[in-house]
Amino acid sequence: MSEISSLGEFGLIDRLTDGLKNVNESTLKGVGDDAAVMHYGADRDVLVTTDLLLENVHFDLTYVPLKHLGYKSAVVNFSDIYAMNGTPKQITVSLGISSRFTLEHIEELYAGIRLACEFYGVDLVGGDTSASHQGLVISITCLGEAARDKIVYRDGAKPTDIICVSGDLGAAYMGLQLLEREKVASAGRKDFVPDFSGKEYLVERQLKPEARKDIVKELAEAGIKPTAMMDVSDGLSSELIHICKQSHTGCRVYEDRIPIDYQTAVMAEELNMNLVTAALNGGEDYELLFTVPLVDHDRVSKLDGVKVIGYVTDENLGCAMIARDGGEIPLQAQGWNPLKGEKED
Amino acid sequence: MSEISSLGEFGLIDRLTDGLKNVNESTLKGVGDDAAVMHYGADRDVLVTTDLLLENVHFDLTYVPLKHLGYKSAVVNFSDIYAMNGTPKQITVSLGISSRFTLEHIEELYAGIRLACEFYGVDLVGGDTSASHQGLVISITCLGEAARDKIVYRDGAKPTDIICVSGDLGAAYMGLQLLEREKVASAGRKDFVPDFSGKEYLVERQLKPEARKDIVKELAEAGIKPTAMMDVSDGLSSELIHICKQSHTGCRVYEDRIPIDYQTAVMAEELNMNLVTAALNGGEDYELLFTVPLVDHDRVSKLDGVKVIGYVTDENLGCAMIARDGGEIPLQAQGWNPLKGEKED
Repeated sequence: MSEISSLGEFGLIDRLTDGLKNVNESTLKGVGDDAAVMHYGADRDVLVTTDLLLENVHFDLTYVPLKHLGYKSAVVNFSDIYAMNGTPKQITVSLGISSRFTLEHIEELYAGIRLACEFYGVDLVGGDTSASHQGLVISITCLGEAARDKIVYRDGAKPTDIICVSGDLGAAYMGLQLLEREKVASAGRKDFVPDFSGKEYLVERQLKPEARKDIVKELAEAGIKPTAMMDVSDGLSSELIHICKQSHTGCRVYEDRIPIDYQTAVMAEELNMNLVTAALNGGEDYELLFTVPLVDHDRVSKLDGVKVIGYVTDENLGCAMIARDGGEIPLQAQGWNPLKGEKED
Repeated sequence: MSEISSLGEFGLIDRLTDGLKNVNESTLKGVGDDAAVMHYGADRDVLVTTDLLLENVHFDLTYVPLKHLGYKSAVVNFSDIYAMNGTPKQITVSLGISSRFTLEHIEELYAGIRLACEFYGVDLVGGDTSASHQGLVISITCLGEAARDKIVYRDGAKPTDIICVSGDLGAAYMGLQLLEREKVASAGRKDFVPDFSGKEYLVERQLKPEARKDIVKELAEAGIKPTAMMDVSDGLSSELIHICKQSHTGCRVYEDRIPIDYQTAVMAEELNMNLVTAALNGGEDYELLFTVPLVDHDRVSKLDGVKVIGYVTDENLGCAMIARDGGEIPLQAQGWNPLKGEKED
């Protein structure tokens, strides 16, 4: 890393943050002092969330381009702020950089982070940069804001509320399976060209997810405030259980209402995997899962990209999926266990 | 890491955050949702800073106890907030945990973080926990607050301002040399007992630094607002150059006014190192370096634990130390280069 270490930390930061412009009124002072300075209006609450991404635990640079990685690292944080019904405003970015990375690599990563910031209207206000003996380390913290009466927690679901989810589920997980398959196929073959034809959506969902800013906007415009909301990062099943546990409720979701893309279904067939299991437990969808009062049923049903998948019940009924044959299958949190660093079986 | 992975991320977080109580009015919702929620008064600005600490780059677990490491990881962030003349209020803690750590290890680390939070009145409001294939990773972000007209940046120093520093310098660096020496001496010897007698202060400065909350309070009580301030983490020389560069000034500091503890001097003698070089470039002192208008000279001179070490000059005079013999020695930023992961020579 001679090139980077010869720049030094401050030289590198200058280079990476060159030309940054803060677009939010709440950002008073960005990169360049002991701390960044913000001011939010008196009627605004401040939201903070953070994500740590480690090479070979959360991403594999064999098939993840650095620019995509930067974009995704920022977006997963924005998603957490939208999941509170808030708006992301600032991020800090800390990087641990191992010696095999050149300045151009880190500029690629930063280009992705900056692109995400631009697209979502977020200011990059600080961070920390260090050598790593341990592969690439990315730690991003995001600040956001919301009016107090608009914030949606996980614990507000009530029996008879209806359960909604945006977009479709399981595609990012299937994208990961596809990328892993092509990685294995390419091993030792320099001329290998991976074949993603007809599966572009899966690859995109894995490598370049978006946060559902549009859904938060739609809900606001329709005058709907969810009673509970979170983003689907660990799998629908796991997130439903979280909401129900914190809200002291149960739930029922209908198997045939779970939104699944055609490409996801084809890939599951190819891999001989259970499609619904993949959609329930796959994770990394970054869709919004939320509950609304029954009275909002008609209005929420009309929203673009939102699907009603079930309803909230009394706590003693537990969490279950109603299968196509009418039978009830208890939901289990089989999602990503980040402490194992791999999917659980 | 069977014990930890069997708890799962949420079980582990529940365990580590058990009994946490938020003490700050600004903390509305801590651990347990997609994001934490804060509210600062309309007259308050929000400060944010972040630090990434990597095993074998920033700390060596051969001689750093996990509880001390946790304490220090939090305190270095608080120090950045005090360096803005602010008050730290909330932190988020992200951990990457490799498989050699048990639950008890992580509880020790957290005990140190929680102790620091308690001592400095800071709420632990969130974080992220993950497996690491790469040694221990600690990423802490701190939020703080300050009234807008109290915030002190690095760029406000003016010619004729006087330069002050709190505490003493070089001891943490000497503590590191001592710990490294004892590590080498202990290699392969199970019965080895390190000898720190008469050098306890050096070890404490390295392993359990404190942030200068007391100095920020003293300054406020004395009605003194520094024109520029930062904390000394990379060495006095490097920090003076930062302030002068950003303020478009030069500076003169007097060699014989640089505060150095007796133990630091003894250790430098033992190691045959230049004492002033160690004090100028050692780093990790976490003292406050600040400038005040000349008119505050008498008031600042009376403050406990603060020493006047020099004055600010016009930019074209550059940054220099006035040696005991009256000669001028240009200051150089020879401090810690975190991109090399080791001290530069």
